[in-house]
Amino acid sequence: MTDDETQIRALVQTWMDATIAGDAAAVLALMADDVVFTVVGSEPFGKETFATLSQGNPTGMSIDGTNEIIELKVLGDWAFTRNKISLVVRTDGNPPMSRSGYTLTLFRKDADGKWRLARDANIVTAD
Amino acid sequence: MTDDETQIRALVQTWMDATIAGDAAAVLALMADDVVFTVVGSEPFGKETFATLSQGNPTGMSIDGTNEIIELKVLGDWAFTRNKISLVVRTDGNPPMSRSGYTLTLFRKDADGKWRLARDANIVTAD
Repeated sequence: MTDDETQIRALVQTWMDATIAGDAAAVLALMADDVVFTVVGSEPFGKETFATLSQGNPTGMSIDGTNEIIELKVLGDWAFTRNKISLVVRTDGNPPMSRSGYTLTLFRKDADGKWRLARDANIVTAD
Repeated sequence: MTDDETQIRALVQTWMDATIAGDAAAVLALMADDVVFTVVGSEPFGKETFATLSQGNPTGMSIDGTNEIIELKVLGDWAFTRNKISLVVRTDGNPPMSRSGYTLTLFRKDADGKWRLARDANIVTAD
């Protein structure tokens, strides 16, 4: 495995760990300033909206799950992965919600040598 | 615009034209043999399943619509686009169905110098 592959795999794991820990700031640090998220049920959005949505999570919400890299290919200073994601979202007073699906994600190595998530199409829906 | 960008834009237009014309063979010729489609509501699938699904379209079905490239970036022998798609699907005896949404798509320039669609995440859903 190349250094780039190792760094991208570490980024994906850190993203998942920070999501489970509810550490929105740590997640935001892993994405490029010009990131674009394409998801089911809304227009594509960027980093500022991601931050706002994270702040809107209800108190007592917890997320657990897995994020498995199915394919990873480095294309110079860009790379893509296809991932399989399974999540369980728990909120106070409600039954747990299972969500799963696949992503197609582009990463970019910025001028500082760090890989960041740059484009993401996320087809994760309620089971 | 570079030659690569011109060829990728032409591919997207040809794909749409062939889809509207109901020419499944022409669409299949625009994708790599190892293509992976990630869509809402099913597991990711490849070229053979795409062909089978196309054959299952009901007689009298017609598709019209637009496919607008919002972003296009060439990364050597790979490239990605983000597209906005709007479709109207008509079948005999039913009201027209509007579908719209966004894609994140990867293209690859194969050894023969031709660009082909290689990975696609398609978040196009019923309006």
